[in-house]
Amino acid sequence: MASNKIGKQTLQFTPAPVLLSRAAIVGPMEGEGPLKDYFDLILDNNLMEGDKSWEQSEKRIMQHSMELALEKAGLTASDLDFYLAGDLLNQIINANYSARFLGIPFFGLYGACSTLAEGMILGAVLLSGDYAEKVGISASSHHDTAERQLRYPTEQGTQRSMTSQWTVTGAGSYIFGRSGCGVRLTHATVGKIKDMGLVDTNDMGTAMAPAAFDTIKTHLEDLGRKETEYDRIITGDLGELGLHVLKEMMAKQGYETGHVTDGGVLIYRPDQDTHSGGSGCGCSAVVLSYFIQQLVEKKMQRILLVGTGALMSPTSSFQGESIPSIAQAVVLENS
Amino acid sequence: MASNKIGKQTLQFTPAPVLLSRAAIVGPMEGEGPLKDYFDLILDNNLMEGDKSWEQSEKRIMQHSMELALEKAGLTASDLDFYLAGDLLNQIINANYSARFLGIPFFGLYGACSTLAEGMILGAVLLSGDYAEKVGISASSHHDTAERQLRYPTEQGTQRSMTSQWTVTGAGSYIFGRSGCGVRLTHATVGKIKDMGLVDTNDMGTAMAPAAFDTIKTHLEDLGRKETEYDRIITGDLGELGLHVLKEMMAKQGYETGHVTDGGVLIYRPDQDTHSGGSGCGCSAVVLSYFIQQLVEKKMQRILLVGTGALMSPTSSFQGESIPSIAQAVVLENS
Repeated sequence: MASNKIGKQTLQFTPAPVLLSRAAIVGPMEGEGPLKDYFDLILDNNLMEGDKSWEQSEKRIMQHSMELALEKAGLTASDLDFYLAGDLLNQIINANYSARFLGIPFFGLYGACSTLAEGMILGAVLLSGDYAEKVGISASSHHDTAERQLRYPTEQGTQRSMTSQWTVTGAGSYIFGRSGCGVRLTHATVGKIKDMGLVDTNDMGTAMAPAAFDTIKTHLEDLGRKETEYDRIITGDLGELGLHVLKEMMAKQGYETGHVTDGGVLIYRPDQDTHSGGSGCGCSAVVLSYFIQQLVEKKMQRILLVGTGALMSPTSSFQGESIPSIAQAVVLENS
Repeated sequence: MASNKIGKQTLQFTPAPVLLSRAAIVGPMEGEGPLKDYFDLILDNNLMEGDKSWEQSEKRIMQHSMELALEKAGLTASDLDFYLAGDLLNQIINANYSARFLGIPFFGLYGACSTLAEGMILGAVLLSGDYAEKVGISASSHHDTAERQLRYPTEQGTQRSMTSQWTVTGAGSYIFGRSGCGVRLTHATVGKIKDMGLVDTNDMGTAMAPAAFDTIKTHLEDLGRKETEYDRIITGDLGELGLHVLKEMMAKQGYETGHVTDGGVLIYRPDQDTHSGGSGCGCSAVVLSYFIQQLVEKKMQRILLVGTGALMSPTSSFQGESIPSIAQAVVLENS
């Protein structure tokens, strides 16, 4: 068995990559939420000044989040060996144009809303395997670009079901290095597709909860750890309903769920009327900013980020396919 | 500098992963081309028996190509530590559903037609870094699914420009391991985005040629090698026109181009009326089958596969964006 793999699906990083810098940019609605103090930039409008389309603005926030992360670390793009990025738009155009802007070797990823965690895993493999000194990882989503591509044009004002989630406008960029001090990425658990046959694309939380459960359970078994050894287990974007389903699944198998929370639940206030909470690649990418700060300030010691992704497309849904889901987990610890 | 990185963009794999098995499935038109004897299965029809949509058939050929590769190696899916896959369809649904079928830990990739090479690089990093014993990599494209998503419905019979390429119906799956005998993946060069401002999505070969040139040049410089040290340098899908542009760029800088060829040029006979040749993730994924056979039979010693990808989307093109392109290179050698 490979010496850096533990159990069925878990990777161990030695040396554990260090988080050198990060930045999060959000839209106005996310900037009114409970985590507003943890974002580097809050936009006035989902359409940025000078842009003719929401897609242009999404591209700009992804690339600008990496610019900010580089600036905070006193680095330039050419200090990064590789860039790993993805987003929700067809052909991951935000990531592609951000990679063009940065001008560094690029791996394009698609893991729907699990993309940030997927990028962190592959970035950590590159660092820990001594293929890179520094890597950059970005993920973004934008409410208006995602809604009109994946559901309805937002101008149409279609009534949303109570189980639906609100795609987060936000971009997060993270820079990890082989050496340095700070928060470390020690382990990761790579997810398998779980698909319970659900077809309601207005209830992605329920569809993704079994994938989150499977990855969390496998992670704990692979490492012989208890769920209580994590200050928080944070799923990416299950939302209110999906988090409820996950906690029920965990409780039925005897797991403690008091420290289990979700990015989609945390990002908006209940009175912001998003129904089941936030979603999108940008959701975990910006909410993580809050948890990193807790690690930096030693208010938390160890967290498990479980990026959750619903991997259907409008075409597969129209053709009657169910929603394949995945969850990618990374352990972040202060050191 | 990271000890397994050489020069600016090149990775060195020690131990070099070994190709344990492979399989290629193509559509009827590709099965009439010059490489027909090197494919494992040739479909009678782009719509497979029992399928109601081309998308269902594309999904089936991707997953079946991995089934065949596993069968040829006497392996089952659970012998693979990780699966890396991608395709051209929005949200890479073929890869997602193939990963569901296989039931193994999954990394979804989007690199347009460079996806196979991108998957091979990341798979090699996982193997060589001792995170995995065996990995599976798949890529596919399908003429009718890609055309109706990225261009026009094929039933419409839109006249194609002379610079346009024909999306290959095909899927290729490759299994690499940490140990064993056979063809080895020794090095890789990770591409940067190149974008010369071209906007004609009916001439992707010209748009991608500068990316291919940049990756080939960087690869040779990083390793201090000459282009003549490769029996063939094979770009993925530049087509007739793109290959011509690449060779001109190379010749201008004094490189020999006699051994430079292209998957899109090789896959169809000139009289198959595809205009500039083949394209699509499936193009390099199935054409590679021929070159692997040359390595296995020791008719060639070393090749450079340069997967080329045009990373625009219909949305970015409608909004006036140019075509960002990338090329990912892997060295395959017999041993």
